[in-house]
Amino acid sequence: MQNFDYCTPTRLVFGKGVIAKLPSVMAPLGKRVLMTYGSGSIKKLGLYDKVKELLADYEIYELPNIQPNPKYDPSVLDGVRLCKEHNVDVILAVGGGSVLDCSKAIAAGAKYDGDPWDLITYKVKAQAALPIVDILTLAATGSEYDAGGVISRTETNDKIGYIDPLLYPVCSLLDPEYTFTVSKKQTAAGCADAMNHVMEQYFVEDSTLLNDGFCEAEFKSLMTNARKCLANPEDYTARAEMMLDCTYGCNRILSLGNSPSGWPCHGIEHALSAYYDITHGEGLAIITPRWMRHILNDRTVHRFVKYGVNVFGIDTSLEPFEIANRAIDATYAFFEEIGIPMHLRQVGIDDSRLDEMAHHIAVNEGLEHAWAPLSEEDIKAILVASL
Amino acid sequence: MQNFDYCTPTRLVFGKGVIAKLPSVMAPLGKRVLMTYGSGSIKKLGLYDKVKELLADYEIYELPNIQPNPKYDPSVLDGVRLCKEHNVDVILAVGGGSVLDCSKAIAAGAKYDGDPWDLITYKVKAQAALPIVDILTLAATGSEYDAGGVISRTETNDKIGYIDPLLYPVCSLLDPEYTFTVSKKQTAAGCADAMNHVMEQYFVEDSTLLNDGFCEAEFKSLMTNARKCLANPEDYTARAEMMLDCTYGCNRILSLGNSPSGWPCHGIEHALSAYYDITHGEGLAIITPRWMRHILNDRTVHRFVKYGVNVFGIDTSLEPFEIANRAIDATYAFFEEIGIPMHLRQVGIDDSRLDEMAHHIAVNEGLEHAWAPLSEEDIKAILVASL
Repeated sequence: MQNFDYCTPTRLVFGKGVIAKLPSVMAPLGKRVLMTYGSGSIKKLGLYDKVKELLADYEIYELPNIQPNPKYDPSVLDGVRLCKEHNVDVILAVGGGSVLDCSKAIAAGAKYDGDPWDLITYKVKAQAALPIVDILTLAATGSEYDAGGVISRTETNDKIGYIDPLLYPVCSLLDPEYTFTVSKKQTAAGCADAMNHVMEQYFVEDSTLLNDGFCEAEFKSLMTNARKCLANPEDYTARAEMMLDCTYGCNRILSLGNSPSGWPCHGIEHALSAYYDITHGEGLAIITPRWMRHILNDRTVHRFVKYGVNVFGIDTSLEPFEIANRAIDATYAFFEEIGIPMHLRQVGIDDSRLDEMAHHIAVNEGLEHAWAPLSEEDIKAILVASL
Repeated sequence: MQNFDYCTPTRLVFGKGVIAKLPSVMAPLGKRVLMTYGSGSIKKLGLYDKVKELLADYEIYELPNIQPNPKYDPSVLDGVRLCKEHNVDVILAVGGGSVLDCSKAIAAGAKYDGDPWDLITYKVKAQAALPIVDILTLAATGSEYDAGGVISRTETNDKIGYIDPLLYPVCSLLDPEYTFTVSKKQTAAGCADAMNHVMEQYFVEDSTLLNDGFCEAEFKSLMTNARKCLANPEDYTARAEMMLDCTYGCNRILSLGNSPSGWPCHGIEHALSAYYDITHGEGLAIITPRWMRHILNDRTVHRFVKYGVNVFGIDTSLEPFEIANRAIDATYAFFEEIGIPMHLRQVGIDDSRLDEMAHHIAVNEGLEHAWAPLSEEDIKAILVASL
């Protein structure tokens, strides 16, 4: 078991009608608010009007149109400018993981005099950040309970994970009813994203019985509840369980004391969505079983056996590689069952830039240090198998 | 799934040698320290000297001799007086759950002008508390990661759980090596305490797939690692896993969204240790299987089936009551295996005050609202079965 240093100070206010607590949550944080959101689904939900009504005596500035795979330019830069211009006290992020990720970069950038890219690339360590409150409308990334965000810079094909303890939200308001209208495509992609977050913590050299159990419970709950959400989008219990499952995805609570994995699928997927702007969860679902098959060997097989037996109930009397391969097949089959396009070609990626992407990943993601180390050649092979 | 409002702001610094971080943890909290500890095992461990060395430039006042089932008088009262006399900035608790629990009551009492008992009994809501840092030497109560403490008042046979969000430790330093010298008796009692914390969250009306999986992982990890710690007290990995297992026991992370259980075994055990000052974990281990057997019925059997199948691997093809009874037997057998005396008579409790205790519990613990409601008669029957 490895040493660790852990703290997640975020308050989770979870359940039906928790929006009513927004005024008391915001009260100590200041009156000048930057409200960030995405394409406008929060207006259809009535959430935009509700926030305006509850915060009628606040000065609210708005940053709308934050895109999936949120962009440094214009979103982060516009947000930082708004915060500085209006001396904003607090950011209220209303939306899914992309809105939250973008808001985190803005929160740090607003308290920094230079180019916010310096912070995101760790050239400069942030010294302060605006407080963030969020109202979540999509179960997927876990950004509501972690200190990280992923920001894309289109012109350089960079998609960078930016993590700083200053960026934990002060409070996340989680009402599963706001996810009733999430499309089947986004529900499935959210599940795949969360499944992969757990895999990136489960497939490691050194883990504990407790963490393995936590992760296996996550896999089973995510699969069971995603199926229920797809069958009945207004199943409150299933939406609620899936929302909390996703919340635990990235704040390390599932793997304290585990050795690091290197987050290989995320490393590979970040290039896919940086080059092609595909849906992150779909990219992960496509990569995951190919990555699994590629790294399966005598050293790694025991983890796939544990995964197969405890998550999919595969017969323990089979040969280890048989169990492992069935587990990988079951993973693929689950993603396919929930409607995810399982080939890169189906999401608009052909073989024309695979070499370039493999090189970009090999240079930038450090996957030679992953649990199962990946060279540029390995990465290329996984991409080819994913076509 | 129930609504909830959750935040655990405590920082966990875990692993070999983390004592080295003590100065940086303490630095922002002030120079006048009340160091609280128990019987002196921290001197044998060298921890007392190490703290003095690391905090050489601090003013350290000491409250030694905090007893198991920590007492309002003298420990809490003495600690509050010391804090007020010396204008203490921060409490450094060095020991197990009793030292921590006592320190929490002191932390609140030090910031209150009246009798601290007003706070502990919720007659008055605490408005502030001193910050607490702890160095844990015993895996058991989870007090290092929760906002509660249990305080006993001998003259009235009261043992009261006092919970306030002000009481989360700022930071818990958790080095499993400090638990190498914990006796077999205390190792087993600590395991039983933690097992019961999980049971009190698992046996409920409304739970989630995720929480059930978390709790089942806890049961399995606690049993496996307690056995290893008893067989080899210096097995670092087993001590480490058990320490973290116990840490999650009482801060609700295992059961967010579950309906309440009423914590019935704790309600009953608190009277046992208030009247007879027995070891809390032993009292819980004795009560637990008798409570289980007493409440087993058509409404509750399904939870025992889940517990039996997922924790003990009992054959699913058996009749539900057969599975449930085998699970209860297995629970009893485990406690017995790790060396816990499984009868009240063995810990010095005879039948002379059972009526009095049953009445005290019925009046004070609210167990008529538990998941399986308990009347005074039920409580008496559980006590009699435990003799």
